[in-house]
Amino acid sequence: MRKVAILGIGQIKIDEHWELSLREIGGNAAFAAMQDAGMNKVDALFVGNMLSPLVDGQNQLGTYFSDWIGLWDQEAVKVEAACASGAAAFRAGLMAVASSDVESALIVGVEKMTDKAGHDVTSALATAADADYEVEQGISFVGINALVMRRYMHEFGWKHEDFAPFSINAHANALHNPFARLHEKITVERFEKSSMVATPINLLDASPIGDGAAAAIIVPAERVMSARGRPRISVAGSASATDTIAVHSRKDPLFLSAAYESSRRAYQMAGVQPGDIDVFELHDAFSIMSALSLEASGFAERGKGVRLGLDGEISPKGRVPVCTRGGLKARGHPVGATGMYQIAEVVQQLRGECGETQVDGARTGMAQNIGGSGATIITHVLQAE
Amino acid sequence: MRKVAILGIGQIKIDEHWELSLREIGGNAAFAAMQDAGMNKVDALFVGNMLSPLVDGQNQLGTYFSDWIGLWDQEAVKVEAACASGAAAFRAGLMAVASSDVESALIVGVEKMTDKAGHDVTSALATAADADYEVEQGISFVGINALVMRRYMHEFGWKHEDFAPFSINAHANALHNPFARLHEKITVERFEKSSMVATPINLLDASPIGDGAAAAIIVPAERVMSARGRPRISVAGSASATDTIAVHSRKDPLFLSAAYESSRRAYQMAGVQPGDIDVFELHDAFSIMSALSLEASGFAERGKGVRLGLDGEISPKGRVPVCTRGGLKARGHPVGATGMYQIAEVVQQLRGECGETQVDGARTGMAQNIGGSGATIITHVLQAE
Repeated sequence: MRKVAILGIGQIKIDEHWELSLREIGGNAAFAAMQDAGMNKVDALFVGNMLSPLVDGQNQLGTYFSDWIGLWDQEAVKVEAACASGAAAFRAGLMAVASSDVESALIVGVEKMTDKAGHDVTSALATAADADYEVEQGISFVGINALVMRRYMHEFGWKHEDFAPFSINAHANALHNPFARLHEKITVERFEKSSMVATPINLLDASPIGDGAAAAIIVPAERVMSARGRPRISVAGSASATDTIAVHSRKDPLFLSAAYESSRRAYQMAGVQPGDIDVFELHDAFSIMSALSLEASGFAERGKGVRLGLDGEISPKGRVPVCTRGGLKARGHPVGATGMYQIAEVVQQLRGECGETQVDGARTGMAQNIGGSGATIITHVLQAE
Repeated sequence: MRKVAILGIGQIKIDEHWELSLREIGGNAAFAAMQDAGMNKVDALFVGNMLSPLVDGQNQLGTYFSDWIGLWDQEAVKVEAACASGAAAFRAGLMAVASSDVESALIVGVEKMTDKAGHDVTSALATAADADYEVEQGISFVGINALVMRRYMHEFGWKHEDFAPFSINAHANALHNPFARLHEKITVERFEKSSMVATPINLLDASPIGDGAAAAIIVPAERVMSARGRPRISVAGSASATDTIAVHSRKDPLFLSAAYESSRRAYQMAGVQPGDIDVFELHDAFSIMSALSLEASGFAERGKGVRLGLDGEISPKGRVPVCTRGGLKARGHPVGATGMYQIAEVVQQLRGECGETQVDGARTGMAQNIGGSGATIITHVLQAE
């Protein structure tokens, strides 16, 4: 396939944007990416979104945004894979440019989750789980993750506070990210004392929702030169893999086989190993997911992901820097937009634009976006050239 | 881009399948396509669906179906563009195979719309229109189309009964399609006397909803030989284009500029002209849409699309055969599945499998799928080789 580069990125601050419509939220990120890329037109638009039919009463978001942005006549479509919708849209755009059918694509991940008259957000989020086999039993999405976390603690002997470093690192990094939802330093003590949500998941294990959008523009790599002090950022690896949608159907509910499979394929495509990854924007929707992602993606042995946090390896100065802009935990988790925030953040790291949380000399970065409880996992490896 | 061929197709009868779940409906079409292609595994699954979050309480349909079908580990994603979701999913699969990133893709268009406890279907369908600028005013989807039809009749001087041939042709052809929702011959008299839905659209101007699914398997064309008496069916042209999402924002609400643009690009890619199209599966959600599609796609002058029906040119023996398997009007319109029924039906025509409604010597066929009131229009040109 034709090599593709990321020419521009755009993000808006994740917040409760009661004053902004869904249109404006996505549009603002798209305009920022177009400005960053120095382009005012693209051939195709790919929108990642999960909840707009339920929460905003709006379908057909591709055309909804091509209309608002002023891309009349152009191709536009929405891609949905629950909380992995952002990366799924990015991958769809990548395929279109890689196939040579289009010469440029804008990808926007967007979600407006607050201040809406539509569905209750908790029940809307439950549509990522299996309606017949999980939701019908009355379980919520956080409930499913709580069962997984409890089993992990039992199986491998970890205590709840052992997960604190994931949350502390995310919050510490978000302090330096103007687009982050939360700007609040936390400690082990606060982590342990925060309100319980679904035992053993408490408030500081869980990521906050919010209104947000992030975008990127991609073009054939041959059209991009390293310039203006910026390296060329190419998409070196991309893969999507799936698991059973219901957690109880898995042979091993404590191993994210879709993360293993998608990262394996992405490494192979990029010709890299886990040890070559300088920065890893992982999908810490709940702290347990950080441990499971690190394990399945080859950074830790099974049951040992928590150890990387306890050993101080996950900070921007550590061996496996994760959530360097705050992660889902503190940057925030506007579900369908999250995957595009991860892509934009890896680009910022590879450009060296991350200031206090910059990973020194980052050349290869990885973004991993998860839909459902590990059901759809999409991994991208980006490289600065 | 790499040339792609359609190796297998599958359809289920469109009906009120109260005994079948969403899983089974989509799965049955997928299994039929796999059997037709002689394959039991594919690299990637693309699902076209519009309403499942609202009507079925289920998101992440890509993985939901990869799980059910037994494609564990494989890539899977859902693509949505309102009623053009089927063709949008097909195009996403096409890009993935054309890019050389995957070697085979299964595309399933699926919709379960009846016998559900979720949203009322009329309000769910309205999410294809603009929530802020159209739906908020209280208009339904059929209401928008009624305004367009009334204006067309006023502007070009047609009477309501002039639209009857579109409905009569669709119903006549559906009699010979076992997968069709309606098997019922109609006449001009019945057309004129049927119940009014939204003036001037009556029941026989409008397509029926239903539960349905259709699927196809695509692979690189170089891997397919003409065999077993079957020609190789290649995807010669594919293009998607958009218009404003709200009809009132258009310079000319009586011209489907996205149909013009997507058919123009698809013709160019395939190296054909409208006169080369032997069969045209168009998107007759309402009879007015048949006229507008024919005009914008180059088969009739502006305001003259109705004339093709009155002149008997749209039957399987005519100059521009449309809806040869019943169209949306009589085969049925399970919204997110419709685009894949159109693709499957064109393949049937090019294989010469259509019996009484076979277009003699059909070698080039076109499928055009519309999302919203002409907001997203996707055109595919298929060729038998």
